[in-house]
Amino acid sequence: MMKLYDFTIAPNPRRVRIFLAEKGIDIPLQQIDLMQGEQFSEDFSKKGPLNDVPALELDDGSCITQVNAICRYIEALYPDKPLFGSTPKEIGEIEMWDHIAFMNGIGAVAEAFRNEAEGFVDRAIVGKHKHAQIPALVERGRKRTLNFFSDMNDRLKDNEFVAGNRYSVADITTLVAVDFAQWIKLEPSADQEHLNRWHALVSKRPSAQA
Amino acid sequence: MMKLYDFTIAPNPRRVRIFLAEKGIDIPLQQIDLMQGEQFSEDFSKKGPLNDVPALELDDGSCITQVNAICRYIEALYPDKPLFGSTPKEIGEIEMWDHIAFMNGIGAVAEAFRNEAEGFVDRAIVGKHKHAQIPALVERGRKRTLNFFSDMNDRLKDNEFVAGNRYSVADITTLVAVDFAQWIKLEPSADQEHLNRWHALVSKRPSAQA
Repeated sequence: MMKLYDFTIAPNPRRVRIFLAEKGIDIPLQQIDLMQGEQFSEDFSKKGPLNDVPALELDDGSCITQVNAICRYIEALYPDKPLFGSTPKEIGEIEMWDHIAFMNGIGAVAEAFRNEAEGFVDRAIVGKHKHAQIPALVERGRKRTLNFFSDMNDRLKDNEFVAGNRYSVADITTLVAVDFAQWIKLEPSADQEHLNRWHALVSKRPSAQA
Repeated sequence: MMKLYDFTIAPNPRRVRIFLAEKGIDIPLQQIDLMQGEQFSEDFSKKGPLNDVPALELDDGSCITQVNAICRYIEALYPDKPLFGSTPKEIGEIEMWDHIAFMNGIGAVAEAFRNEAEGFVDRAIVGKHKHAQIPALVERGRKRTLNFFSDMNDRLKDNEFVAGNRYSVADITTLVAVDFAQWIKLEPSADQEHLNRWHALVSKRPSAQA
């Protein structure tokens, strides 16, 4: 039976939980307490190369880590209601916008957060190697987050969803990035009407509670 | 007719060219001279949100950017010789290792390179927004690149290819990352025998010349 190693409040596991909820799939969750450093335990270290959650344990005991690796495994097993697209063009456009949302959204907020938070001293980059926090990245990450809001507001002016006219994994990544920005006390401004319209739309889907 | 906007010496377009060569697909290339700032021209600015290459122009005139978005579009059109995997488990493992090679390989070298190179002043991050170079990232990027060599040497000890027993897009990303490291004057050490064994193996495939 599959099992997902999770940490409820963390943004990356939430991306997988929303994905599973959209698919209508229910699998057991096991909490790995990142605040207590449980990801570095001897047991969990064997689960994947970067000591990170989410991690999906398969029936054979092996693990798949990295959000989109898990989601693509799930999509391959359960192809109904595709979230990575159906036609070649949809598949390309969704991957394009998902990657942009990951790099410029999730990546920007994480840059500001991990380089400042007390719990991430010497762990500014995910993985087993130590990296000191760099104060200049706090400011850069915040600036990039605001750029992301602005760019996505433009993108959503003429597109109902991030990758076009259908809900996709790119909406999940963008939603989690926008909500994650609350950790660094940033949110879209009231006049970013397209981003706010979209945020309300995707937040009222039941999956957003996952 | 599809067309790929390319810049011969840059690492990210090379990832797509290798992918196309592995698929046996030949499409017209158009050079965008990044050294001359051609990616910021009025014409090319319309091709994608981040002013970056590679960009694939489709028959309908629209463009797909971001390496894996282009590669997944190609794989959807030409599913033979799959480079993103066939079974759910392969699909998950390949995406996992490809993402790790992108973040810790391509990302590490780019961090060192873009924060030091003269041509990237105020362009430390890809896209239309300006970001100053941060000297501390040169050293961090170099350290991360060496960690990547070490981690991949470990990974390749018991695996013929990066994602296991079959050549995949994860090998393309890792190969381009290792070769890109020459730009910052780093290369695997002679005693990283597994990484060197693998590098020789994938470099002698005809696609590596693409």
